[in-house]
This record gives sequence, C-alpha cells and structure tokens, in this order.
Amino acid sequence: MPAKNDGPEAGTQSKSEHTRALILETAMRLFQENGYDKTTMRAIAKEAGVSVGNAYYYFAGKEHLIQGFYDRIAAEHQVAARSVLETETALEARLAGVLTAWLDIAEPYHEFAVQFFKNAADPDSPLSPFSAESEHAREQAISVHREVLAGSKSKVSPELRDALPELMWLSQMGLVLYWVFDRTEDRERSYRLARRGARLTARGVALSRFRVLRPLVLEVHELFNDFLPGMTKALPAPRSRT
Amino acid sequence: MPAKNDGPEAGTQSKSEHTRALILETAMRLFQENGYDKTTMRAIAKEAGVSVGNAYYYFAGKEHLIQGFYDRIAAEHQVAARSVLETETALEARLAGVLTAWLDIAEPYHEFAVQFFKNAADPDSPLSPFSAESEHAREQAISVHREVLAGSKSKVSPELRDALPELMWLSQMGLVLYWVFDRTEDRERSYRLARRGARLTARGVALSRFRVLRPLVLEVHELFNDFLPGMTKALPAPRSRT
Repeated sequence: MPAKNDGPEAGTQSKSEHTRALILETAMRLFQENGYDKTTMRAIAKEAGVSVGNAYYYFAGKEHLIQGFYDRIAAEHQVAARSVLETETALEARLAGVLTAWLDIAEPYHEFAVQFFKNAADPDSPLSPFSAESEHAREQAISVHREVLAGSKSKVSPELRDALPELMWLSQMGLVLYWVFDRTEDRERSYRLARRGARLTARGVALSRFRVLRPLVLEVHELFNDFLPGMTKALPAPRSRT
Repeated sequence: MPAKNDGPEAGTQSKSEHTRALILETAMRLFQENGYDKTTMRAIAKEAGVSVGNAYYYFAGKEHLIQGFYDRIAAEHQVAARSVLETETALEARLAGVLTAWLDIAEPYHEFAVQFFKNAADPDSPLSPFSAESEHAREQAISVHREVLAGSKSKVSPELRDALPELMWLSQMGLVLYWVFDRTEDRERSYRLARRGARLTARGVALSRFRVLRPLVLEVHELFNDFLPGMTKALPAPRSRT
C-alpha cells in the first residue's frame, strides 16, 4: 500500500493515487457526518464521483478504508515527528515530542474518533489497532518508537531493545484512548498526559540499568504479546504453562 | 445504600428492599434486551409492576440503576472472594483467586457488558468506573485489593501500602476491558490473563523491596490519580509543574 503518498504532504500524485486519496477523504467525511455503520461503499463512491466498481478497486471494503486512514495517520505522524527526532537527544524530550506531534496531527479527526471508538475498541475487530489487519500501520507506528529509543543518549540493555518500542507504542495507545474522551479545551489534559507519560517512561528506562528489573519488563512485554492477538503475526496458542 | 441486601444471596428482605431489587433486576433485563439507551424509566416501572413515581423513589434515574448494579456486583464479588481471602496466604494465589472470582460472578452480565461498554468507557461519564458517581462501588472494589495485600505474607513497604491496592484495582479494570471483548469459550483467555496478571503483579510487588523502584511505583500511581478524574474526591486542578 503506497501509504507515504496518501498524505496531503505528497508532492506529485499519479491519477491513481489522486483517486485513491479522493475516495479516502470522501469516506472519512461521510463517516464523520453519518457514522461509520450507516455509510455504505455505494454512498462513498457516489459522493466521490467514481463508480462503485472503481471504489472497490481501491478499497475492498469499509474496513480497508479505515486501514487506509490508519496508514495515513501513521505516515503523517512520521513526517510531523521528524524535526524532534532530528534535534532532540534526551529520551524524555524525544518521546514527549513524538507523542505531542501525534496529538497535533490527530486533532482534525477527534470527532470521528469519538464516534468510531466503539468499533476500534474490540481487539478482535479488524478495525482495532491490535488486529492483524492493522499490522502495516502498527509497524509504522512502532518504528517511530524504535527511532525514539535508538537516537536517544539513554543506554538500553540489548535484552530490552526489542521490547521497549512495543511497550512505548502500547502506552501511546493508552494516550489515544484518553484523548478520545478528552473534552478539555485544545485537549490540554492529553498534552499534559503525553508529557507526564514521557517523563515516567524515561525514568523507567533509566531504572532498567538495574538488572533485577529486566525480567519484569520482559514479562510485561510477553504478556501483551500473548494476549493481544494481533501483536504477533499469529494468534498464540494457549500455553500449557499458564 | 444497602448494597449487601441487593444480591440474590440476601436472606430476609424487607418489602422496600424487595421492591428495590425487583426494579434493579427488571432494569438489567430490559437493558440487556433493548439496550441501555432505548430503555426508559417508564418502561422499567411498567415491566416491574410499580408506579413510575415508585421507581424514581428508589432510583433517581437510569444512571442510578447502573450504580446500583455496580454496587451489587461489588457486593457479590466480596462474598465470592471470601473463601480465597480466608485460606490463601501467597499474594499471587490471593490475587488470582480474587480476579477469577470476579470473572465467575460477572459471567451472567457479559452480554450486557458488551453492549453497555460504550457508555462506561468514557471516564467523564457518571457510568464510568472512574467517575465520582461510581465511588461507592469503586471503594468496595479497592477494599478487596487492600485485603488481598494485607492478608498476604508478602512484605510491602509502608510507602506503597496505599498506592498498590488502587493500582491492583486499575489492572483489574484492564482485565474487565479484556473480558468485555473476550469471545473464547467460557472466557478461557480472560481466566488465563487473570492468572498471568496475578503472577506478574506478585513479582512486581516482590521487586518493590528494592528501594530504587518505589519512586517509580508512586509516580505511576500519582499519574493515574491526576488524570483519572474520579480517582480522587475532586477533579485535580491542572498542576503548574507539568
């Protein structure tokens, strides 16, 4: 999926990319106006001025439109986080910058997120950020956290280097959940939570120099991997040891 | 509120307690059948065979019925957890027992929980487990975790004795969220998560003997208190230091 070309920042778009973006934008608008459940592919195609067959050529169904939207958000976030990742070296500042960049770019979609929440909250739904279907967008989002960690001057043990970015992304999902329900002006509470969360994470990572803590961090990570079905490629089989 | 007398386990009920329980049960049934949003106080009163005025005498509105339901669940849970709390001494076994007891008693309400979820997920809603309105049920639920900790042979530093039961209850809320979406037979995954979560918590508490960890635990606790509005008695004012 050519996610990088979906964003409004994209330069020259081919006709095909343009049509794809048009369908996605029209869908997002209709989802916002009429709700996700009530909006049909037919209505989206009609409003976008393309044939129904053409709409299905680009997106096999409504779920795929949401995946396209997730990919776009992830791509926009990567662009928005760039300057922080290129200038900051302290883990707390890098993480705070990346989280607040997400809040910045997500703001136009807040209203949609509120009404869409009930579809995405179910971890078994293809629309959940934890689903197998969301893997592409999730991988993009986790890679940002990998970069947050790799480019910081914080020392991280090799044992934790794989687990931490996924855990940082999970705590970002906690922030997103909080943001969905945040009614303060300019999402002031969400921005504060992003900064506080970044400070807490940086302190936790600093403590991981104590060897005694590492098994616990790894166990937390393993627990999420075992219980959030999409986090690993395949649904893990029930383990006999639990 | 005489929550202890709401449950089906109650022995002799006064007429008033009986009417109250009847209204609550009727409401829960109608909520399950027709959805919370579509069920009116008038319909509940009619179905229960009481006057509308009488229904309002016991419950000032639909939100109060939900609070009554939360209180009942909390009271049933306290009863169901009793035997584990009286026999087990290891923290892991106590916590696993208490969490699985909750899954046992909540099972009849699973269908309702699924459809009610969208009302309760908003932390600012009076129906959220974090709201000021839910304080009574929340306090009951946290007190169970206080007992889990106090009666275990695990050594806990005085600094953490207040924070840990609230954090344990928060992780129970995580389990509840997982359970709402659990479609495995007999909620098998939720039971496994309860046991794994209990093991992880017990290991975390064991690590808290390392002094270096305590500030982090306290900071996590403070973060939840600052950002979940109902967790403290009053909504905390934005702090200048964040």
